[in-house]
Amino acid sequence: MLSESAAAVEATLSDLLPPEGGALEAAMRYGVLQGGKRLRAFLALESAALFRVPRIQALRAAAAVECVHGYSLIHDDLPAMDDDDLRRGKPTVHRAWDEATAILAGDALQTLAFEILASDHGGIDPRIRVRLIQGLAQAAGWHGMVGGQALDIAAETAARPLDLEATTALQALKTGALIIWAAESGAILGRSDPGPLRAYAADLGLAFQIRDDILDVEGDPETAGKRLRKDEAAGKATFVSLLGLDGARARARALVASAGAHLAAYGSAAGNLRLAAGFALDRAA
Amino acid sequence: MLSESAAAVEATLSDLLPPEGGALEAAMRYGVLQGGKRLRAFLALESAALFRVPRIQALRAAAAVECVHGYSLIHDDLPAMDDDDLRRGKPTVHRAWDEATAILAGDALQTLAFEILASDHGGIDPRIRVRLIQGLAQAAGWHGMVGGQALDIAAETAARPLDLEATTALQALKTGALIIWAAESGAILGRSDPGPLRAYAADLGLAFQIRDDILDVEGDPETAGKRLRKDEAAGKATFVSLLGLDGARARARALVASAGAHLAAYGSAAGNLRLAAGFALDRAA
Repeated sequence: MLSESAAAVEATLSDLLPPEGGALEAAMRYGVLQGGKRLRAFLALESAALFRVPRIQALRAAAAVECVHGYSLIHDDLPAMDDDDLRRGKPTVHRAWDEATAILAGDALQTLAFEILASDHGGIDPRIRVRLIQGLAQAAGWHGMVGGQALDIAAETAARPLDLEATTALQALKTGALIIWAAESGAILGRSDPGPLRAYAADLGLAFQIRDDILDVEGDPETAGKRLRKDEAAGKATFVSLLGLDGARARARALVASAGAHLAAYGSAAGNLRLAAGFALDRAA
Repeated sequence: MLSESAAAVEATLSDLLPPEGGALEAAMRYGVLQGGKRLRAFLALESAALFRVPRIQALRAAAAVECVHGYSLIHDDLPAMDDDDLRRGKPTVHRAWDEATAILAGDALQTLAFEILASDHGGIDPRIRVRLIQGLAQAAGWHGMVGGQALDIAAETAARPLDLEATTALQALKTGALIIWAAESGAILGRSDPGPLRAYAADLGLAFQIRDDILDVEGDPETAGKRLRKDEAAGKATFVSLLGLDGARARARALVASAGAHLAAYGSAAGNLRLAAGFALDRAA
């Protein structure tokens, strides 16, 4: 993300998160601030820019989706889930505090996402707000992100690893739905057809996941700031185990090309979104 | 609740919850259906009736608040939180399935609550929907229910038990905020002043909590369907430890009288809400 945008997202999140108070408030801030690549916030801001949506409105959507993403990471890292001690090179929330605080901080971050979208700050029309909220709930809930997470857990104890179709469907839920919501949020705020951005984001999200699987095999835990090669250890299907390293790279390249093609109608205004697709292929962490 | 209303709430929840599928969907249904006294749904329906709100709209609010309540119970029961094996006489969700499923089912139930309120089913004006969503988020999040839960956890490791003022403030967040939202939802749907219903529900919620503390000391685990005398074992302050049994009973009686007084303007239409306040004093479970 351009550094000016990244700074605006951090500042918005810092304002919307609770002030430092007890463990809950501190854990919520820790789980979201200075976090990662901000892919979802970037998509929300760039898609909004295509439709000349006021920046203050786009930042609401960006902050909301980063709160949902942050909550999902805190809960995913819990001992009962992926049991991870490190995230972005720092102790995970349940390691820095405790499990109860991590559960509650994740819970409250999800709530905050909906509070941000419901609030009239930014002057978003209430009809647009309820549409964004409904879409985010569908992307995050049992038929979206959490549904994908549940399928992923079920796959761990299944008799054999998932096939390519099932793995693709699982990732479309687990990570794709939220990425798609971020990319379409700008079109919804701009009262335009979200179709092309949804198609772009579906390809982009899958390319990102394939790159994650490649980095999980090839990457350096130091650079990644987290434990790697978990899926292999768990005997889980990944795009690398299903397609091989070269096959996975080819599939990611094809998806990035397809993602770019969906942006044709937006011309040069979609330049940053095209760059993001390319970044999905080349990133080292 | 009148049995006709109780049946309508169960049917609405059953329709809105995911159909039986994998563990996630089954755990979500198990955590919410056939659940408890439905105090919050009752308050939503009765407050809506005062303002002649269409029943279909009131049932949306009732279902949403019961989803939030159900999610909070599933997460509260987790080993890292209260570590309870029984709820309403049945195994808790993490005992019937596992911890990961319980975390995800709670997460998805919270999401579902917001999805229910955002959806246009029932024809609720979008301006009313965003107001309900914002209020529910405030009641459920870090400055409401989850904030109270975090204070409750912090109190367990504090040097000494909380005093009466701090215990009252904690309960106002932990259980009061959601009960207040349920009671005011009908006024918001009816475009009327929620003030009197908020005041009624604040008193009622506290009276319910005091009765819970009394039942925790006097009650029969068989009738209650859950483990009792946990607070005493944990050395936590309760209204009974702070006021004594007689003092707690007197305080609950005074609150119920005060709750009823806030309903004066609604006359006989508020008869069921008055009965509910009385029930807070006399219930055995």
